Amino acid sequence: MIKGLSSAGLGDVKNLEELILLASKNGFDTVDTSGKDLRNFVKDKGLTEAKNFLKEKNITISSINLSVEWRETDEVFREGLSVLLEDAKIAAKFGCTRCCTYVLPSTDYPAAYFMVLATKRLRLCAQVLKEFDIQLGLEFVGPHHLRVAWENPFIWDMQEMIDWIEVIGELNVGLLLDSYHWYTTGGTYEDITSLNPTQIVHVHLNDAKDLPVEQVLDNDRLFPGDGVINFNSFLNALVDIGYQGPVVQEILTKEPFKESAHDLAKKSGEAFTKVFSSIKN
Amino acid sequence: MIKGLSSAGLGDVKNLEELILLASKNGFDTVDTSGKDLRNFVKDKGLTEAKNFLKEKNITISSINLSVEWRETDEVFREGLSVLLEDAKIAAKFGCTRCCTYVLPSTDYPAAYFMVLATKRLRLCAQVLKEFDIQLGLEFVGPHHLRVAWENPFIWDMQEMIDWIEVIGELNVGLLLDSYHWYTTGGTYEDITSLNPTQIVHVHLNDAKDLPVEQVLDNDRLFPGDGVINFNSFLNALVDIGYQGPVVQEILTKEPFKESAHDLAKKSGEAFTKVFSSIKN
Amino acid sequence: MIKGLSSAGLGDVKNLEELILLASKNGFDTVDTSGKDLRNFVKDKGLTEAKNFLKEKNITISSINLSVEWRETDEVFREGLSVLLEDAKIAAKFGCTRCCTYVLPSTDYPAAYFMVLATKRLRLCAQVLKEFDIQLGLEFVGPHHLRVAWENPFIWDMQEMIDWIEVIGELNVGLLLDSYHWYTTGGTYEDITSLNPTQIVHVHLNDAKDLPVEQVLDNDRLFPGDGVINFNSFLNALVDIGYQGPVVQEILTKEPFKESAHDLAKKSGEAFTKVFSSIKN
Amino acid sequence: MIKGLSSAGLGDVKNLEELILLASKNGFDTVDTSGKDLRNFVKDKGLTEAKNFLKEKNITISSINLSVEWRETDEVFREGLSVLLEDAKIAAKFGCTRCCTYVLPSTDYPAAYFMVLATKRLRLCAQVLKEFDIQLGLEFVGPHHLRVAWENPFIWDMQEMIDWIEVIGELNVGLLLDSYHWYTTGGTYEDITSLNPTQIVHVHLNDAKDLPVEQVLDNDRLFPGDGVINFNSFLNALVDIGYQGPVVQEILTKEPFKESAHDLAKKSGEAFTKVFSSIKN
Repeated sequence: MIKGLSSAGLGDVKNLEELILLASKNGFDTVDTSGKDLRNFVKDKGLTEAKNFLKEKNITISSINLSVEWRETDEVFREGLSVLLEDAKIAAKFGCTRCCTYVLPSTDYPAAYFMVLATKRLRLCAQVLKEFDIQLGLEFVGPHHLRVAWENPFIWDMQEMIDWIEVIGELNVGLLLDSYHWYTTGGTYEDITSLNPTQIVHVHLNDAKDLPVEQVLDNDRLFPGDGVINFNSFLNALVDIGYQGPVVQEILTKEPFKESAHDLAKKSGEAFTKVFSSIKN
Repeated sequence: MIKGLSSAGLGDVKNLEELILLASKNGFDTVDTSGKDLRNFVKDKGLTEAKNFLKEKNITISSINLSVEWRETDEVFREGLSVLLEDAKIAAKFGCTRCCTYVLPSTDYPAAYFMVLATKRLRLCAQVLKEFDIQLGLEFVGPHHLRVAWENPFIWDMQEMIDWIEVIGELNVGLLLDSYHWYTTGGTYEDITSLNPTQIVHVHLNDAKDLPVEQVLDNDRLFPGDGVINFNSFLNALVDIGYQGPVVQEILTKEPFKESAHDLAKKSGEAFTKVFSSIKN
Repeated sequence: MIKGLSSAGLGDVKNLEELILLASKNGFDTVDTSGKDLRNFVKDKGLTEAKNFLKEKNITISSINLSVEWRETDEVFREGLSVLLEDAKIAAKFGCTRCCTYVLPSTDYPAAYFMVLATKRLRLCAQVLKEFDIQLGLEFVGPHHLRVAWENPFIWDMQEMIDWIEVIGELNVGLLLDSYHWYTTGGTYEDITSLNPTQIVHVHLNDAKDLPVEQVLDNDRLFPGDGVINFNSFLNALVDIGYQGPVVQEILTKEPFKESAHDLAKKSGEAFTKVFSSIKN
Repeated sequence: MIKGLSSAGLGDVKNLEELILLASKNGFDTVDTSGKDLRNFVKDKGLTEAKNFLKEKNITISSINLSVEWRETDEVFREGLSVLLEDAKIAAKFGCTRCCTYVLPSTDYPAAYFMVLATKRLRLCAQVLKEFDIQLGLEFVGPHHLRVAWENPFIWDMQEMIDWIEVIGELNVGLLLDSYHWYTTGGTYEDITSLNPTQIVHVHLNDAKDLPVEQVLDNDRLFPGDGVINFNSFLNALVDIGYQGPVVQEILTKEPFKESAHDLAKKSGEAFTKVFSSIKN
């Protein structure tokens, strides 16, 4: 597996260049970013220099987020398609083959009809991305409070997400598996080993507080190893099915961190070393 | 348009042969039936004789119902596929090009996930039917009490149904437009003229009692012209877009009829004559 | 039906504004153009003024051509997607609901594999266009010399095109029916009346020389009524199935015209009056 | 990987029961068969007894062949759908999750149009199989003489097959990778390692004579290890990408074998032991 950093969990990170440096210095191989940050990176350094910088630092781009807003009106969705294309182009130039979005577990739209719209829109996004050899990762979101944060329950179960992906019907769509959402949906080792590795587009890593699982909040995450998630089970399940893709840290918190990005990246590196120490070879 | 009868509204109709006779004697051109009734018809008379009988009586088969149960478990759905194939085969032999099912406006399943399953299953049904040149008509169901008859609201709006049909993504899928559901969803002349005729696979005709629309019950229907539905608007909208397919009576009632099938068919013929008298030429 | 002009057949037409004027003065209701010409039109006049100009002249935009090159490499196709999006956006602003491309009857690619690529690419184009409520019209191309102009035969038959459209699987895809290609593929009145009108996205009108049909060249077309095509049959078939969309002139010739655009547009108007005089009401 | 036998290469095998016995006695774990043979097996022994027999002998059912004829007329295809359903049902009862068909590299149909029909039909087969949790494996066929055995070249390249599978658009469709076809299409270690393991539904194993590759005939195959195919490369590539599915022997020959099934199965077991001895652990 390929260890990665995102800026979520690092406090104030100036730009992609700094994220790459922090990743490189702390034992990571890859970073999550956005099309926008990639474009700024190229604007600052030029494409060749930007790519050389990554090469020197031994860092790859694991994933960009899906920038197009597929949860609102048709008009908003349409507007976003141009940026999606730009994102796909810049990502492809950097050899990035993943683009990810999360699926909230409730919605103010009528749920069945929103499923129709979401299927149509994500199918189109997937097709555009496919042209650039990019996979689309869909993240199911587990925390219980979010299941009632909007009027109608939507989808949060891994198997339901897999069935949805089948109905979307594009071969480059798969799961973003986040340890937090696996934990808050009662995920097991067997749930992961029931997958084949190519159903997983991307993996996020972070930990949960020692609370009743129903009370765990989405934006109250801990560094891997600081909480109660069984990473021995989570990571070994990934090893056992032969998953060889990225595993990227993403820590969402209510309050901004007080530590510097430098210290937080160091802490992240140590956290990864710790939780990965238990995996089989 | 092609006027048709179904057994719903005729009380005790012995079999398809009797339905055909009743249709023929009362000014109808077509009948709705089922794969099962077609098979029994062939069992009784032989295929050639059965087809000759229809020819003599100047009656065609407009539609069969979708027999496969797509609203339950995967296992039940799978079981139904064999009968679907048999139905498609026998329907094709009779030149029948429509197969219809209704979509209830609420469900005990989680709505978003049920939409995933329903999309997957109806897509497969559509593909099987397509091999036999049969269209699949999906009927949206309007009565308000049914929107809360099961735990979660599903879909009952014509436009939402059209968007769903697009996501199902098979070109032989369209609407079954029932005057009752048009009325109970507040349908207008413009709603129908916004369609192109090939989006309509089939039409049902029946009338509603003079009650507040929210109180109209699904199984409390009247003969066309006996109630408050504006057939002038409904039928002329179909004329104006060039719809040339069948319009078939379907009267669902709480209590069985007291009149004989003979009398009810006569009444049906008169009802059709009445409501069709107002349409443009 | 809505009569229309394109610049093909008018010699030197300066820009879209002139095309609109020529159409307006000679009894036409609509014009075919391109996304690029629409953008230039807006650049010259501003969007509001451009739309007002069309309104004043009573002219609509019937169709733009599909600018993305879907017949070459993946790279070229990808490059074209941004312009496709721009085209769709500008077309939607003008209420244009059609985008068309032609399918050559032979190819230097291996035919079966090219069918795979073409299906994938046109499916994506259709989905992008659908977001802007635009249909994609695919034109089958009949002249016999083009069937051997490249190494491998591809597709030129109307029914084969219809089956392909079904496999592309997007509901906004249909035929561009050109009288020249209908004629050169031996098309009949019945071939057209076997269609439902919504299978036809767009119609082109032009005439063929009195030669053995195998010798008719693609770029040797005549004004409607000057040749041997049976427009009585072609247009009445369209009337009989209820086609109400645009019918746009497109005259491809080997040599540039000697007449002025003014004279050629006048001739076009007279040609349309003549061939349309025979159609039923 | 799971080693398997099919009856191709064993001469006279009476029935599935005998095939299972031969597999069991010679170190195999699985067998390829057909829906028909499974039904006969159940007819002979009853379902419970048949399943117990497999369990006792430690043999699973790896794959059935796709019985529906998808290369002929629509009518023939339609006729086959009932048997496909029966096949899927019986296969599912035995826990068999694969159904495979081969794709000939040339065809008497026009190639582009045949691609349209084949896509439509295999998509439907895949959807039916999916309902029973069965994958559809498509086998590209390499021998050069077959590329000109029918009028028009079709598809024989692995990458083209993969692109086609994407266009079919069902997530349960993948490759049947046969060492013979890999060899005769100039396949390399890298061609296989460019795949992810879930793109491979099934693997066939057999060897080729020491002839110029253009002269190798489809029905002139050798036991694994008796010819010139580099199984070290082929099998290690499968190991390196983590393929854990079945690898089943299939030897097609011009003349019937002279040896008994018993002897041929023994020879098969030894051949597998030999070629598998070189793979990494």
